Amino acid sequence: MGRESMYFEGAEKRLSLTLESACPSLRALGDAYWRRALAKSNTEILSKLSSEQCDAYLLSESSLFIWHDSLVLITCGNTRLIETVVNLVESLGPKQILSLSYQRKSEILASLQSSRFEEDLARLRELLSGDAYRMGHLDGHYHQLFLSGQVGQLKPTQVMQMYHIRGDLADYLRSDRQSTEGIASRLNLTQLLSGFHLDTHLFSPLGYSLNALRGQDYFTLHITPQEMSSYVSLETNLSLGDGLRAIVVELLNRLNPVSWDIAGFDAEAPAYCAEQYSLQARGELALADGQGLYIKHYKQRDCEQLLPVAL
Amino acid sequence: MGRESMYFEGAEKRLSLTLESACPSLRALGDAYWRRALAKSNTEILSKLSSEQCDAYLLSESSLFIWHDSLVLITCGNTRLIETVVNLVESLGPKQILSLSYQRKSEILASLQSSRFEEDLARLRELLSGDAYRMGHLDGHYHQLFLSGQVGQLKPTQVMQMYHIRGDLADYLRSDRQSTEGIASRLNLTQLLSGFHLDTHLFSPLGYSLNALRGQDYFTLHITPQEMSSYVSLETNLSLGDGLRAIVVELLNRLNPVSWDIAGFDAEAPAYCAEQYSLQARGELALADGQGLYIKHYKQRDCEQLLPVAL
Repeated sequence: MGRESMYFEGAEKRLSLTLESACPSLRALGDAYWRRALAKSNTEILSKLSSEQCDAYLLSESSLFIWHDSLVLITCGNTRLIETVVNLVESLGPKQILSLSYQRKSEILASLQSSRFEEDLARLRELLSGDAYRMGHLDGHYHQLFLSGQVGQLKPTQVMQMYHIRGDLADYLRSDRQSTEGIASRLNLTQLLSGFHLDTHLFSPLGYSLNALRGQDYFTLHITPQEMSSYVSLETNLSLGDGLRAIVVELLNRLNPVSWDIAGFDAEAPAYCAEQYSLQARGELALADGQGLYIKHYKQRDCEQLLPVAL
Repeated sequence: MGRESMYFEGAEKRLSLTLESACPSLRALGDAYWRRALAKSNTEILSKLSSEQCDAYLLSESSLFIWHDSLVLITCGNTRLIETVVNLVESLGPKQILSLSYQRKSEILASLQSSRFEEDLARLRELLSGDAYRMGHLDGHYHQLFLSGQVGQLKPTQVMQMYHIRGDLADYLRSDRQSTEGIASRLNLTQLLSGFHLDTHLFSPLGYSLNALRGQDYFTLHITPQEMSSYVSLETNLSLGDGLRAIVVELLNRLNPVSWDIAGFDAEAPAYCAEQYSLQARGELALADGQGLYIKHYKQRDCEQLLPVAL
């Protein structure tokens, strides 16, 4: 395996926004509109899956979900998502935006990013009023977010990130043998995502993306298995009590990450079925209307043996 | 407290080198020589403490220890230590260098550094042959080092780093009330460093450095207590069996960090006296002659409550 395929920045930047109810439908803006907006962050549309409620775009750098009055856009790598965000806010009009959140998880290779969160924040504050926070220590995993408008109106989501996957499935995901069918089968996707329509893509040389829709429900999974920076993320509006727990436990058992985070609007602790992990840290950001954004960081219980990596 | 005093990059870059035995004494090069070399990384000499065997310079950015045929230089902040290293190797002559190690611990604010380790490495490899390694994951604490020559001849040291200090002493170190005498008393330095001569400096608005010498033994302690990036490091040639364990345990109990690392030539696990911590990860880099460089990462056992930080 070449050195260039050993690293990839999986950690996503994320935009979630909801429009005022009187606005025209976001879905009516058309593919060309989204193509232009995404081009600002060097991101391309690879495919599209639609349901009655939602258009799910699979991107060269993660995913875009568009409903009538809201959207969720996540991009990975060294994309400058902030450029697309600025473009969308200016194009839609700041006054049309009921609520917006812009988030960046701590990057694995932060020094390779073309902007810091604080710099993105300065751009956003020229357009929108809002509050920004960081949860977690700078020397570990942390979440940074900017919130504007009626944040109680943002889509209630759960986001999970897994780091340093290990074992047979991790090896398979780094191999030449992999296929979309093989991954679906090994992840037990048919059972875990029962009733969902799936759109998947296998990247070359490595990487796998999945968008899934089932009525109002959406689910996305991104795997960057690169040896030195392996990372798997999922995002969904399913709650832990409504199908997500079984998915989390199955993915943990199959992917066997060293550590993982979950962040979302669901206060419940998801890990009681995955006893090989212990809860290392948790935090809550109180939002309006009694809602909260909860983050939790888990790590394997056993002492990890670190191997020297030649540079 | 102003925002500018909430962050400081404590994590050090470190040079250790040993000259061929026929070389003239490093100590004879004189203060002006070291002043010029240190200026390459924007570092100044604040004071000097000498014993029969060693000159210990307290620097504006950490410490320099010089023996007859070897030196240890550590700098923190956003210093470009690599510039001083290149200057020293060129000035002393690559053929005069018996062994050299250049190390960078993962920085707390990596994206603010003016070079990455890989870039420093490219500079070093123009001057010296050697091997480079990383131990630890990129999303957590990791150690990066370049080793050249007879690495068994490097000074056997232990380096300890503590992150996110908490409690009364941490509060005191962030207060206007602090003094060098007050810190020495609260850290119990007279007892812990019995027989050592001390040179200390209190930085404005925050920060404390200590160099200490006792015959062949050296010890240095640097405290950057800034709320959002608090960090305390020590380095010494004392072994865990020879006085260091008592110091480690006392500092852990008084400074109460969330996590800490120890790296060095001493295979022993130091933590059995500090039961509030669990060993999260360990690694060994095998060197020549049965020697090894051992790193260990500890974290508090209890789940940490993370508080949102407004940005």
